Amino acid sequence: MIKDFQMSNPDILVSEVGPRDGLQNIDAVIPTAEKKRWIKAEAQAGVREIEVGSFVPAKYMPQLADTLELVTFALAIEDLSVAVLVPNFHGAKAAVEAGVDKMSIPFSVSETHCQRNLNRSHEQMFAEIDRIIEMLDSQPEGKRPYFEVGLSTAFGCSLEGKIADQKIVAIADKVMQSGCDEVGLSDTTGSANPQQVRHLIRLVRSVVGDDKLTGVHLHNTRGLGLANALAALEEGITTIDSSLGGLGGCPAAPGASGNIVTEDLVFMLESMGLSTGIDIHKLLVVRETLAEAIPQESLFGFTADAGLPLGY
Amino acid sequence: MIKDFQMSNPDILVSEVGPRDGLQNIDAVIPTAEKKRWIKAEAQAGVREIEVGSFVPAKYMPQLADTLELVTFALAIEDLSVAVLVPNFHGAKAAVEAGVDKMSIPFSVSETHCQRNLNRSHEQMFAEIDRIIEMLDSQPEGKRPYFEVGLSTAFGCSLEGKIADQKIVAIADKVMQSGCDEVGLSDTTGSANPQQVRHLIRLVRSVVGDDKLTGVHLHNTRGLGLANALAALEEGITTIDSSLGGLGGCPAAPGASGNIVTEDLVFMLESMGLSTGIDIHKLLVVRETLAEAIPQESLFGFTADAGLPLGY
Repeated sequence: MIKDFQMSNPDILVSEVGPRDGLQNIDAVIPTAEKKRWIKAEAQAGVREIEVGSFVPAKYMPQLADTLELVTFALAIEDLSVAVLVPNFHGAKAAVEAGVDKMSIPFSVSETHCQRNLNRSHEQMFAEIDRIIEMLDSQPEGKRPYFEVGLSTAFGCSLEGKIADQKIVAIADKVMQSGCDEVGLSDTTGSANPQQVRHLIRLVRSVVGDDKLTGVHLHNTRGLGLANALAALEEGITTIDSSLGGLGGCPAAPGASGNIVTEDLVFMLESMGLSTGIDIHKLLVVRETLAEAIPQESLFGFTADAGLPLGY
Repeated sequence: MIKDFQMSNPDILVSEVGPRDGLQNIDAVIPTAEKKRWIKAEAQAGVREIEVGSFVPAKYMPQLADTLELVTFALAIEDLSVAVLVPNFHGAKAAVEAGVDKMSIPFSVSETHCQRNLNRSHEQMFAEIDRIIEMLDSQPEGKRPYFEVGLSTAFGCSLEGKIADQKIVAIADKVMQSGCDEVGLSDTTGSANPQQVRHLIRLVRSVVGDDKLTGVHLHNTRGLGLANALAALEEGITTIDSSLGGLGGCPAAPGASGNIVTEDLVFMLESMGLSTGIDIHKLLVVRETLAEAIPQESLFGFTADAGLPLGY
């Protein structure tokens, strides 16, 4: 639990990752003022958590160079949990200094992908996480952000294929023992199917405990994003990452969507009777603003084009 | 059960409706030879049931004027169940004479939509169905096709909004009592959510019996098609309609996909360990051929662009 308001109100926490996961995958660099408008408008539409950026060296991701400024801006918005991604100890330190509510580190269960993505072996990742937790433990009360380890490529890797259950479980167990607050499951390559989502959630929970795996990060690469989200919901998952307009297409697969689409996810949840705290009408307006800000990118999702059903 | 082979082999029957539902929604008229190539290629990829057309007057749907020729062609393909849509008694008579394996009549539970679509009130629909069943009962053994009543707009109508449960159940009950073989649930407007799919399947089955509602026809208008399919599967549904390339966009919603995409559906089912009898590699080749045949139409679906995951 990060901030009380997150879990007290809505049934499901829709965590918007567009400003981070979306923007890191497109060429365009959006002006900081435009990003602030986006973040503020989504918060005003009722979104309770936004991953605003990543504390990664600007030379690698110039699109996210303004993360510190965005964190400061977003922290001033009432009732918003401000999340960031951190690739390593230095990023984590910057995130803590910035005062974020939540930070996640991606731990690819595929060691090949881990090496390619963060230039670290699994052993080095464990050591880095130990260092981060030591730093977190030295923070004064109330200054320690919630720290999640995202198990990337958990449903399959484009370099290694499917990763063995035992390996995933062992990593989850070890990072929880190290003292991180929670693990998450990430379908980095969009390979998951609903059966596998159920299986892996149950398996990892059997080791870390039900309350230490509450969120999933799913992609829509092969169109199964919402079906996988449904399976996760039915397993009791309460936090689902998504991206406005499905921003974040995988560069390796032209035309293929990346993240699941926030608008369609909210439509699904709300029409199922699950509250998200989000006003979908306002959300669809934010989408239009975003589309205007990045005219060169095509947005994904169906609800925006189709409109809401009569009587919704 | 229509033909033994349908249920004996695969766990799930994927019923391809593209040549009917897909083509009736696009402007282009595909040459008959091209349609035959499509039907044959899909059957060779392992598709067990194809709705090849509709026995509707050619003046209303010139795209489907060659239905009789396609039925004759498709009946010669081994292990293929040949289905058609019929709007009324005359269409049903033509279907029986053509020797189809299965025919479906769309019965909009929204009377306003029923009136607009087929120019008949509910009372007139019941009378038409009685006439059809009388005609079917007079057929010699082995000449009677399987007759399904598809409950259109079951999950909501764009003219009337949500239709009351009692009305849907009453219609299902009455047509079953009249002697049709089965009812199906159709999300004509793409308004369904997984919760509603579960609810309505249970409700209708409680009246008609589990074995008299085995199929659903879902749209992907708001991106929930596969999530709804998953909910239906988990309720024990064994036949799911879909369209290659998601062909069949709703003319009223530009950019919004119509039918769920056969390729993505097959990927979901097979990766969940459910057999469809379909070779997805071959299916993706058929998609390419279709795309070449209708270059002016954009196809939907993600699996074709993303490719199959490593180790699939």
